[in-house]
Parts: sequence; C-alpha cells; structure tokens
Amino acid sequence: MKRISILGSTGSIGRQCLSVTDSLPGRFEIVALAAGSNIALAAEQAVRHRPKIVSVATEAGARKLCDMLSGSRRPAPEILFGSEGIERVATHPDAEIVVSAAVGVVGLPATYKAIECGKQIALANKEVLVAAGEVVMAAAQRHGVSLLPVDSEHNAIHQCLRAGQNREVKRLVLTASGGPFRKTPISKLGRVTPKQALAHPNWKMGQRITIDSATLMNKGLELIEAQHLFALEPDQLDVVVHPQSIVHGLVEFRDGSVIAQLGSPDMRIPISHCLAWPVRMATPAPRLDLARVGTLSFEEPDMTRFPALAIARRALAAGGAAPTILNAANEVAVREFVDRRLGFCEIAALVEATLELSERRGEMAEPQSVEEALAIDHNARRMAAELLPEIAAMAS
Amino acid sequence: MKRISILGSTGSIGRQCLSVTDSLPGRFEIVALAAGSNIALAAEQAVRHRPKIVSVATEAGARKLCDMLSGSRRPAPEILFGSEGIERVATHPDAEIVVSAAVGVVGLPATYKAIECGKQIALANKEVLVAAGEVVMAAAQRHGVSLLPVDSEHNAIHQCLRAGQNREVKRLVLTASGGPFRKTPISKLGRVTPKQALAHPNWKMGQRITIDSATLMNKGLELIEAQHLFALEPDQLDVVVHPQSIVHGLVEFRDGSVIAQLGSPDMRIPISHCLAWPVRMATPAPRLDLARVGTLSFEEPDMTRFPALAIARRALAAGGAAPTILNAANEVAVREFVDRRLGFCEIAALVEATLELSERRGEMAEPQSVEEALAIDHNARRMAAELLPEIAAMAS
Repeated sequence: MKRISILGSTGSIGRQCLSVTDSLPGRFEIVALAAGSNIALAAEQAVRHRPKIVSVATEAGARKLCDMLSGSRRPAPEILFGSEGIERVATHPDAEIVVSAAVGVVGLPATYKAIECGKQIALANKEVLVAAGEVVMAAAQRHGVSLLPVDSEHNAIHQCLRAGQNREVKRLVLTASGGPFRKTPISKLGRVTPKQALAHPNWKMGQRITIDSATLMNKGLELIEAQHLFALEPDQLDVVVHPQSIVHGLVEFRDGSVIAQLGSPDMRIPISHCLAWPVRMATPAPRLDLARVGTLSFEEPDMTRFPALAIARRALAAGGAAPTILNAANEVAVREFVDRRLGFCEIAALVEATLELSERRGEMAEPQSVEEALAIDHNARRMAAELLPEIAAMAS
Repeated sequence: MKRISILGSTGSIGRQCLSVTDSLPGRFEIVALAAGSNIALAAEQAVRHRPKIVSVATEAGARKLCDMLSGSRRPAPEILFGSEGIERVATHPDAEIVVSAAVGVVGLPATYKAIECGKQIALANKEVLVAAGEVVMAAAQRHGVSLLPVDSEHNAIHQCLRAGQNREVKRLVLTASGGPFRKTPISKLGRVTPKQALAHPNWKMGQRITIDSATLMNKGLELIEAQHLFALEPDQLDVVVHPQSIVHGLVEFRDGSVIAQLGSPDMRIPISHCLAWPVRMATPAPRLDLARVGTLSFEEPDMTRFPALAIARRALAAGGAAPTILNAANEVAVREFVDRRLGFCEIAALVEATLELSERRGEMAEPQSVEEALAIDHNARRMAAELLPEIAAMAS
C-alpha cells in the first residue's frame, strides 16, 4: 500500500493518476489532493478517493467545496486553500510519493517543500526544473530524494538509462511529434488560429502544453528539464521529430547501442511507471502492436519552422536565469495567443525579445533559491507584458 | 586486462571479435584461438595476437600451420588440432571469457567444457542452445556461468531486459529483415538460386546463416535460443519483420512500456557489449542517425512465404528432440540447396519431413547430455539425407 499526495488532482495528469490508482485496488492510498478552481471535480474526487486533506486555489473555492461535501455521509476531509493549502498537501506526513502535476510556477514552492520533507516526487510540473532546476536538484540530492519524471519523454529516458551507467551515455534524444503544423507551409503559419494549434495529432493534453507542442517550445523546455534530471551537458541532448509519437525517447551509449522506450501514446504508462517504481505493474493501457503501426518516421527538426526550439536551445546553453525567463515569457505569449492578441509566429518573437531585454538589463544571474526563481519569473512576465504591444504589432 | 579464448577465430564473428580487441590496446589479451581450415588466416592471427595455443580442425592443418609459423622470430604458440585441440582452447586456465563462435555442432562439446570450467561465455554458436539448450542452461546455472549472447537480436534483448525484472516481461520480439525474398512473388520462390539467396540486403554474414535469413529459419532458431537464454514460454516470443535491421529486438513489459535496442547493423556493437560486460566501452561502429535513416517499418511475417518459421515455431512448442532435429535437418537442406541439389522451397520441406519421420519413429525425447544431443543431431542428418531424393523430386 503506497500512500500518495497529488498536486493538481483535477488536471489532465492528476485525473489519469487517479484512474491508474483506481484500476489497482488495494495498492495505493490517496492521502491528500490539491486542486485549482474545478471545485465540482475536487468534490467528486474527495468523495471517491477519501483523502485526509483537500486543498483548492481560493478561499471562495474552499467554502464552495465545504458546501458540496456537507451532504456526504462520509467524514469530510480537512479543506484548505491557497499556497498554504497546497504545501500542506505536499508535505502531509503520511504521503510517501507526491505527484507534482499542478500547472505553472504555483507548483514550484510546494514541490520544493515536499523534497525538503524527503518525499519521492513523481514530477509532471515543467516549471519545477525549468524555473529552478539547479536549486531543486541540489535539494533533491541533499535529501536523498529521487525525482521520477512523469512526462512521457523523460520517463522514456529514465527507463532507457537502466540499460547502462550514466558515464557510458553519449547522447540522449527526445522525440517530438512536430505538432499540427509540421507540414503547414511556413508562409501560412502567421495566420493559424488557436483552435488549429489546439488540435494535437496524437496526445490529448492541457491547453498550454498543446500550444507549446505546436511551436516546439515544449521540446525546448523538455531539453532544459532533461539537463537537470539526467545531469548531462547541453550538447548531449537532442531532439528528433517523430510524427507517430510511438518512440518517446532514446539513449545512445558509447558502444553504439541505442536504447529506446516505445509505447502507445497513453500517459497511464509513464504514470504507472512512477507510481510503481522501482517495480513495474500491469496497466490498462493498450499494448503496442508495431506491425499494425507499420511505419515509424524520423526527421531533423526544422529550425525555420520552429524558432522556439532554437531559442530554447540557446537558453539551455546560456543557463543562469535564461531558462526561467524563457518559460515565463512563453507562458505569457501562449496566453496572449490563445486570447487572440498575439499571432502564432509572435509567440517565439515575444520570448526572444524578453530574453534580449533581460540581457540588456543584466538580469541573467542563476536563481539561488525558489524565491529568487519566482522573482525572476515574475519580473520576466512583467517584461513580456511590456513588450507585448510592440511584438503584436510586428505581425501586421 | 581481460583474457579471451576464441572458438572459430577465422570465421566472421571471430575476425570481428579480434578487430574489436585490436581497437582497444591494453584492454584484452588473446589467450587461445581455435580455427577451422583457413590455416593462412590462423597463422596471421597467431603472429598478430600471440595466443598461447592455436588449434585447427585437422592434423594436416596443424602441420601446415607449424610450417608457416616456423619462420617467425617470435616464440610459436602450442599448436593443436581436432576436438581435443578446440577443447584445450575452450578450457585454457588463463581464459576468463570464451567466445563461442565456431560454426555448427562442432562448437557444442567445447563450449560445454568451458561452462564446466566456469568460464564466462560470449555465445555466437547457434547450435549450443538449439541442439542442447536444456543441458547447456542447466550446466550454466550449476557453474554460475553467464551466457552473453553475441547475436545482434539476443544481445538487444539482453540489453533491453536491464530495464526491468524478468517476471515483469510480457513478451519479447525479435526483428527479422525478411531477407532478399521479402517481396519476391511467392510463385517465383521455387526458382531462386543460391546466389540470389546469398545476397542479404543488410548484413554480411557466413553462408549458412545468410540462407537461413532468406528462409527465416534463422529467426525460428533464434526463438528457440531466446527461450533458453531468457527462460520464457514459447507464447511470449514473437517475430516482426523489419527490413531496415535498425531495431534488433524489443521487450514488452507488463506496464505497456516497450524497450528496444537499436543500432547500425554492425556486429562490433554486440561483440563489444559481450566483451566489456558489465560495462560498455567505446566502439568504432558508426553511430545511428535516425533522421538520416528516416523510416523504420514493421510487418507481420508471412507464414506462406516463410514456412520454415512456422515449422520452427512448432518445434519450439513441441520441445524434446524437435529443435535438435530441426537444426540438423536444416543444415543438411541448406548445404544441398547451396550445392544446387535442392530447390529453395524444399529446404523447409526437407526439415518438415525429417521431423515427421523422427516422430513416426518415436525419436523425440529430450537429450539428457551433450552426447545424446550429438547423437540426435547425427541421426537427424542421416534421416534428412535419406529423405533428400524424395523431397528434391517434389520441386519438379
């Protein structure tokens, strides 16, 4: 019986995580859940999974949740809210594993606290490593905590690395589907709509990550995460476009052997891998039939089509505050694109402009704490907002 | 400094093995070499690698080798021949690893002796496990010997299995290139020549294994080896046709993850994996560039086109003496095909007829010793020879 806390229980990963634990009765106990603003679903999860604590984003949400649960015959969980609430969920003394699946920097301080408490982390929150990678990895090492990546690509690499020792690794390769615009004429990319960008060919994911998959910024952020997770140099990290999303990641060893992890594009596979670690348990995910898939194809990412990937690679190589700024500016840009105040091609342009402005202002030092990372993030968002009108005007 | 004996040093695997050890001066010492009838190459290897013992197939060969080495300024190795000679090479007290790469059943008794001496085995001789799998694996377990498979497919599986525990394995899949006749109209297969069958699209290998790749008997024999090497049930073993020979093998775990090993089709990769085990060392093999490869394709093997694979699967399921008989009859059939006394389609037919005859005679009991395995092999060859005229006549 493993005891689990989930940060972001009503999000895509949180929900699939609960479906995995549900499919194996008696193996997992849900200790605490942190949700955001989907109170109806949080209430449903509280009734079904009987956690000891449920936290939501706001006080108003907490009151609404209280009301919704008051009719239940079962003893109600303790209901909390805000940053204190999510931190209580992350550090609950009964939890052995904390699934860090909240979206955005909101998950960073809570995940950091969980690491300080020595919890094993199943990591699905990109910001934790992109915004504060050095700080977080140092804490994980200090507290003997293993960070198990939930993300399908990093989870694939984590599995492949079992076939050798770290010093035997020559290179690792993350696959990218290439998103919905892999074949769109580049001249037409300026006019694609949020609706088109949100139609991902292989994966059903949240809004932000789906747009990031269309720009390939997602893959750039994953390279930054991979650098921290696997302690490799930037030039040991590569991306290959693989439209079928069957091969999730590959590790090239120095003897010329390449080990790859493949699977149906189903997040229950990496989630169950993290929850069951260090063993493997059966999952309800459909099994892979390669003869039925027929063809796996691979191509170099086109940096003209995907400038965001090139910008992210430069931020990866630059280090310091660059990855934190990259991520913050990108989050602003994606929101503006979804709200139709920014063109698709201007997402990368806004990120690049924010990085350049930070550099001109000499604000590129590596964050030394979670608080510094959050301050850099906050500042970068403000700069991106400042730059927005100018960049948005570029499109016309 | 690892000390190595090689059985079959002048064959394809033996030569590549020496090229790997040559590329890493100071890491390996060649203790003893066993060759067959290529005396000129055995002499060259003796001069270059300075083994303590060299054995060749016949007494006449040994005398010729003596003459060739008498001019050398260096102290000559001890020169031996025949089954006693190869066994001395296999059991040399200085050898830590024995590369078992002799072709045919001749390598079986010597490899078995090496296991009894507790040597680590790098196994490239198909007959060792196909003809006497139960006996050999029991000896390996008794003497705490690990059998490291050199064959690219089994070596791939060996690498993939590191990513999990054996009881977590659902299925393993060996890839088959499909050989030169994957697309030949089935009606024309009866008229293909040895020359056409020997033109393998991806690998440069010995004659027998190249013909076996054209019939897919090779893959059937590999399934039998895999069953012994990895202690799995016949229904956990699968084959997929993959014409590019880039993915060499895959392991499906119960959580839905599939781990695959990929690499350029270059035997120096699995050879170096066995020699360096449990670490990985750099090799001169070309690195894999998936974007350049572009496409990997997979299809179910067509059992009408490749009846040998279906016959081998039945022998695998039947167990007992069936795999030993299958292998012996196939070796006879391949030789007769190469010598143009048997049609391509009659290779499988002769193997099937030999198995049926053995069954009618009630000679299907599992061999209990290497001697029994050799007797079954010998007997099956005689039966195949008896059946030959009748089967050869079927073609016309």
